Amino acid sequence: MRAVILAAGEGKRLRPHFSGPKPLVRLLGLSLIERNILALRECGINDFVIITGCYSSEIQDHLGNGSKFGVNITYLHNPDWELGNGVSACTFRKNYRQGEKFILIMSDHVFELDVLKAFVAEAPNINEDELLLAADRRLKSVYDLGECTKVKAEQDFAVKLGKDLRDFNTVDCGLFIGTGALLEALSEAISQCRYTLTDAVNILAGQRKVKLHFVNGTWIDVDDLPSYRHAEKILLQSLVPPKDGLVSRVLNRRVSLRITKLFARTSITPNQVTFLSFLISAASAVFFAMVHPLYGGLLAQLSSILDGVDGEIARLKFLKSNYGGLFDAVLDRYADFLIVLGMAYAWCSKAENSLALLACAATLTGMPMSMLLKEKFHALTGKPFIPESYDGILRYLPANRDGRLFIIMLGGILNLIPATLILLATVTHLQALARLYNARKLM
Amino acid sequence: MRAVILAAGEGKRLRPHFSGPKPLVRLLGLSLIERNILALRECGINDFVIITGCYSSEIQDHLGNGSKFGVNITYLHNPDWELGNGVSACTFRKNYRQGEKFILIMSDHVFELDVLKAFVAEAPNINEDELLLAADRRLKSVYDLGECTKVKAEQDFAVKLGKDLRDFNTVDCGLFIGTGALLEALSEAISQCRYTLTDAVNILAGQRKVKLHFVNGTWIDVDDLPSYRHAEKILLQSLVPPKDGLVSRVLNRRVSLRITKLFARTSITPNQVTFLSFLISAASAVFFAMVHPLYGGLLAQLSSILDGVDGEIARLKFLKSNYGGLFDAVLDRYADFLIVLGMAYAWCSKAENSLALLACAATLTGMPMSMLLKEKFHALTGKPFIPESYDGILRYLPANRDGRLFIIMLGGILNLIPATLILLATVTHLQALARLYNARKLM
Repeated sequence: MRAVILAAGEGKRLRPHFSGPKPLVRLLGLSLIERNILALRECGINDFVIITGCYSSEIQDHLGNGSKFGVNITYLHNPDWELGNGVSACTFRKNYRQGEKFILIMSDHVFELDVLKAFVAEAPNINEDELLLAADRRLKSVYDLGECTKVKAEQDFAVKLGKDLRDFNTVDCGLFIGTGALLEALSEAISQCRYTLTDAVNILAGQRKVKLHFVNGTWIDVDDLPSYRHAEKILLQSLVPPKDGLVSRVLNRRVSLRITKLFARTSITPNQVTFLSFLISAASAVFFAMVHPLYGGLLAQLSSILDGVDGEIARLKFLKSNYGGLFDAVLDRYADFLIVLGMAYAWCSKAENSLALLACAATLTGMPMSMLLKEKFHALTGKPFIPESYDGILRYLPANRDGRLFIIMLGGILNLIPATLILLATVTHLQALARLYNARKLM
Repeated sequence: MRAVILAAGEGKRLRPHFSGPKPLVRLLGLSLIERNILALRECGINDFVIITGCYSSEIQDHLGNGSKFGVNITYLHNPDWELGNGVSACTFRKNYRQGEKFILIMSDHVFELDVLKAFVAEAPNINEDELLLAADRRLKSVYDLGECTKVKAEQDFAVKLGKDLRDFNTVDCGLFIGTGALLEALSEAISQCRYTLTDAVNILAGQRKVKLHFVNGTWIDVDDLPSYRHAEKILLQSLVPPKDGLVSRVLNRRVSLRITKLFARTSITPNQVTFLSFLISAASAVFFAMVHPLYGGLLAQLSSILDGVDGEIARLKFLKSNYGGLFDAVLDRYADFLIVLGMAYAWCSKAENSLALLACAATLTGMPMSMLLKEKFHALTGKPFIPESYDGILRYLPANRDGRLFIIMLGGILNLIPATLILLATVTHLQALARLYNARKLM
């Protein structure tokens, strides 16, 4: 399936705040149109047709033939872009292949990735003379309802659309799966001097051919500065994974999302952040060993926060890679090792040695167990290990990495090294043994 | 698909050596017929029809309705079993369901599991009037060729069969996928007073309806004491996994297969062996800590050998379970921890402490890395990590568990604890870092 992106407009309302055309306005490190291309690529779309108008050459210069994104891009120019977006959409007619279904998306709309994925998956379920429209019926949470195109829906079909519609129960998200029927409706509308996309959709709606797909996630039309800010907020929130640890959710993410917002504007890669997090852990270890537990503890927690940033940047800028996952997993283990070693060294240098050795050894053995049990469970059963369902009450044990580094920070601040090591050993082994016991019933 | 097992014969030649009917003769902990039922269950077969004759009630008492194996067993009795195995096979006629394909297997034949799996997978490729026969054309390695039924093959079809055939190029393994055509051929042969299965197969061979499937693994017809001994050997050899470590292949398996042979006759479970191996590691740790490195080292190696026995018994007696895999993975990590801790304790008690601490910590961090990298790689890519292909020259590094415990044994015998810990730390981290580096190109 191909995607058609409308990028012909002028984008007046954002012009005072940003230079250049609106599709190229950068939002958290990617231009608006780039984000849509990369997000659709994640949905399996590799061929794009971009309809340009006002800023044709700037957009072509910026995106090229798509090879830098691993996709193909074709450009169609609409000299009459000022007439309306229906005329721009109709430009696709000369490139349309008989019988194909295509995605039609506005270059300045931002969608959470899961919204796009769910929408694209619906393509096989529409008939060849229908149109699928993404719609949002959660009217209370829709951003800037006044500016939205309203839709009157009956069951899963749109019957009338319009910006000033009074009787409506859902709104148009500006995301379509079109067929030849849409292009015919566009021609018909244009021949009647009605130049917007909504005019053409209304023709099909009258024939009960506009099927609705109700979205579940967030989306926004980036039109002015407040909506730009809101888009930033939505995207950052969407980066928090559902299976976050407690410390991570309550504390780390609040800071890491700010760092990610800052880093996103630069060309810093996720793997570079992973390595930076490791270096900070190493520094933490040195401070612990030199009996400066306060700095050691704080640096450990900083490293834990940065441990979230790599994944956030990867998801935000579509830079996720399997290797990044492995690199992170291994460096985290080494970081843990250095910190514990630093603590044990400090303890050893001033107290009874064999207990320090035991605590150090037990902690180092316990720490990789959390991941090891999860991955082994996954490898053996083919099912991911879900701590929320499988750990029972022990899911609140701070034995995952966010919890462990938080304990280390507290231990450093309070200068309680022996107690910290003993606590770490206890929680990690308790979790490991409990997982082993619980897994009996689950495998 | 259902399986029909012929278990009607008398088994005269094994009678002097074993009491009871031949299908119930125990071989490495399972009776011959049990082994075939369990092996076919692994191939996805859940419904069995057993044709009894000479020892009808003994066999039924032993196997019951199959519920203890998680399968369904139906029995058909052939009072005329003495006439020949064709008459026994024809007994299935009254139970046959129009159009079905079925596996026909002799209760006293032993097949490597992979041979059965590959054969069963061929079932969809034969026509409804054909017969599929497992055949072995590796004549030099066939056991007791004189006793085998010879087959003259042209391409993939048998044209003539017989025990005394002179012009032959392959032999009959006694394993079939039959259709209604086989039952008709059996009736026809019997009406001509030709009572063996080979008689009926010859009728179909004359019509070019006996397709051949050439086996790649080992199999044997257990007829007398030498073939019984040979079957034991074949089965034990088939337990060695292809991706064995070097120490394991060269040293451990030679001992572990003997222990497995011994344990197979008892009701010891794989998980019990896993736990025994762990206890021996714990004892090794105590000896190291008490500065008896010789015993410590030898016990560590014994634990490494037993670490292979659990899996061998599981495969041999079809007791493999996901939980067993996880239990083994976790207990191995704990065993490693105890041994290293014992060694470090001994070192600490008589020498410079901070180096001992560093070596202990580095070893404990390095040891789980081997498994952790493999499992994480698998979880991320969906592909298993194959050390032979991915580790390059470092695949000879003794960083896997068999190699590590071998180093520990040597270190104990030579009383070189510090050097052993430093070596362990070096090889494990070298492997981990090399894997991380190599994985870049593979993920």
